[in-house]
Amino acid sequence: MVGGSVPVFDEVILSTALMNQVISFHDMSGTLVCQAGCVLEDLSRHVEERGFVMPLDLGAKGSCHIGGNVATNAGGLRFLRYGSLHGTVLGLEAVLADGTVLNCLSTLRKDNTGYDLKQLFIGSEGTLGVITAVSILCPPKPRAVSVAFLGCPGFSEVLQTFTTCKGLLGEILSAYEFMDAECMWLVTHHLRLASPVQESPFYVLIETSGSRAGHDAEKLNDFLEQVLSSGLVTDGTVATDHLKVKALWALRERISEALSRDGYVYKYDLSLPTERLYDLVTDLRVRLGPRAKHVVGYGHLGDGNLHLNVTSEAFSPSVLGTLEPYVYEWTAEQRGSVSAEHGLGFKKRGVLGYSKPPEALRLMRQLKALLDPKGILNPYKTLPAQA
Amino acid sequence: MVGGSVPVFDEVILSTALMNQVISFHDMSGTLVCQAGCVLEDLSRHVEERGFVMPLDLGAKGSCHIGGNVATNAGGLRFLRYGSLHGTVLGLEAVLADGTVLNCLSTLRKDNTGYDLKQLFIGSEGTLGVITAVSILCPPKPRAVSVAFLGCPGFSEVLQTFTTCKGLLGEILSAYEFMDAECMWLVTHHLRLASPVQESPFYVLIETSGSRAGHDAEKLNDFLEQVLSSGLVTDGTVATDHLKVKALWALRERISEALSRDGYVYKYDLSLPTERLYDLVTDLRVRLGPRAKHVVGYGHLGDGNLHLNVTSEAFSPSVLGTLEPYVYEWTAEQRGSVSAEHGLGFKKRGVLGYSKPPEALRLMRQLKALLDPKGILNPYKTLPAQA
Repeated sequence: MVGGSVPVFDEVILSTALMNQVISFHDMSGTLVCQAGCVLEDLSRHVEERGFVMPLDLGAKGSCHIGGNVATNAGGLRFLRYGSLHGTVLGLEAVLADGTVLNCLSTLRKDNTGYDLKQLFIGSEGTLGVITAVSILCPPKPRAVSVAFLGCPGFSEVLQTFTTCKGLLGEILSAYEFMDAECMWLVTHHLRLASPVQESPFYVLIETSGSRAGHDAEKLNDFLEQVLSSGLVTDGTVATDHLKVKALWALRERISEALSRDGYVYKYDLSLPTERLYDLVTDLRVRLGPRAKHVVGYGHLGDGNLHLNVTSEAFSPSVLGTLEPYVYEWTAEQRGSVSAEHGLGFKKRGVLGYSKPPEALRLMRQLKALLDPKGILNPYKTLPAQA
Repeated sequence: MVGGSVPVFDEVILSTALMNQVISFHDMSGTLVCQAGCVLEDLSRHVEERGFVMPLDLGAKGSCHIGGNVATNAGGLRFLRYGSLHGTVLGLEAVLADGTVLNCLSTLRKDNTGYDLKQLFIGSEGTLGVITAVSILCPPKPRAVSVAFLGCPGFSEVLQTFTTCKGLLGEILSAYEFMDAECMWLVTHHLRLASPVQESPFYVLIETSGSRAGHDAEKLNDFLEQVLSSGLVTDGTVATDHLKVKALWALRERISEALSRDGYVYKYDLSLPTERLYDLVTDLRVRLGPRAKHVVGYGHLGDGNLHLNVTSEAFSPSVLGTLEPYVYEWTAEQRGSVSAEHGLGFKKRGVLGYSKPPEALRLMRQLKALLDPKGILNPYKTLPAQA
């Protein structure tokens, strides 16, 4: 999406695919230590067999490496519940540009001895060091998981439903995702998925996960009764069965795939104040008019994270010119982030200045120069090209 | 405790006490932005009136500043539930050594644009910059809080009770603290607090906090039934009333005060593998013999964090010589941390090498030199004096 791992000029590709061993797992604390090339889905299976889950989950889990997840500070579907990798990664080992092996592979939850160096490498996209091993805190596997898929009459109702569910579902709320009617059209039309609810302007996917099925069901039922009777939600379905849960999640997770079948895709991953999240989508539909096939908004509403996507028949400089820098300026005006969870890579490194002040850019460059004076680590990425 | 904020030679003291304004609070997301000199308890009151809680709580809440909490990466009593400040602090503003104001005061949950600079300042004890403002994510205020105070016949039962309660209390478990019989003697003897349970070798304090009192009570009752019937716990009491909850917490929170009335106190704050947490206390009782008045162990067992304290009539070089470097060597052998949540400051900066390899120390020094080339920010602290 941003070309963070794609060689563009003269780079050498370094694969960690053979470094795919679990080093240890501690049953009482849930601490996993593993090599960087482990595939996320394999790790999920490993810890789930032992009663735990990985604190992150994303569509690419079948192929992405944990080292890459940490290097890009991946967000994903469990972020709302378990938070950022800056909090759940306990330690890491990295090889620096001069070949030094920096062993910060601690498994401790608390360690206030000196600077927390591992944080430097989380989200730095491989530009400060090569992550070779990771230790990560895994939460206990929830005994009960439920998913509700709901139709909402407007975006204001999507927001009010969020506030209501935070109050009534409390600590068992593990995801609050939204998608608009055009997203539903794309997945039903291109992927032949069936919508489980009546046609609505917006859809919401709510996941709960908890330790006691009966309690969770009671909380979820009370919530549904309230949102249905107040008209915030017009139709809905609930699943607890694993396969049905997976099918409901597919409607949300496969939007990206459906988009790629629709034409050329312009992709944006933004953090915005939740109340204004959808205004940008509506605004762009008007600006682009018939030049766009679809302008869609979906994403992790609970985290204030919008995935904004535009499709057109083929790549069009005029569409791109209408989108950029407009989308970035709009986001900067809201003090949002021009890359919420996808990083900057090669394609978006030029837009860093929309989210960070010049003083921050200067310090980033100084850190890069300190850790990689010859510029050999993932060059041409993350930081803007110097004028 | 470690002298992180105490001037030792020629320092100038900088107080942020007048920078005590809340800048903003966002009701939907629970995002608080405030100046560095705000007192933690005032902030707690501010957000609790709005239905949220601060993600950290500690004994010193009535006097400590949020800027200091972030600068020292304070852990405290809610760590088990809400995790590290590296995860809950969303942004900060810091003044660098050259006077540059670095504005990273983002309120976004997700922002992957460039390096996460704020992480550098969290836990750096003011040695890389002066934190002047903070933005922090506050979780919703739990509607129901319960505390169970239990007596356990041995440390092995303390551990098994922990595993049992993680399973049965799940997502509502918010603290698992332990203290030994000597701690109880100190608080009952010096502070005249009354023990609520029969005399036991160990005591455990468990806090639950959740969104629905009835569900929480049911989970807690099932847990208590199981640990009492299996003999893991021999006596216990439960409180939900605010004053009784406070009284039970006082037994744990005021141990430090009771220790200070007992004589000269040697204090250690260690992270250790949970299973071996108490072995060091037993070991030291034998090594010190009658030279120590008390050797006590208590702390955040759920986080693997032991507070080890030794009292003697007056300061004794012989006691200190028996304790150090023995305690640090023992901890290093277990790959623990010689400072779990209290930092290094002036007193403990020399022991950094027990928890971090030379490569990490070198990089820490390089970061210090980059950000503070003249060494004017909290000098003589955190990093070891150079040979």
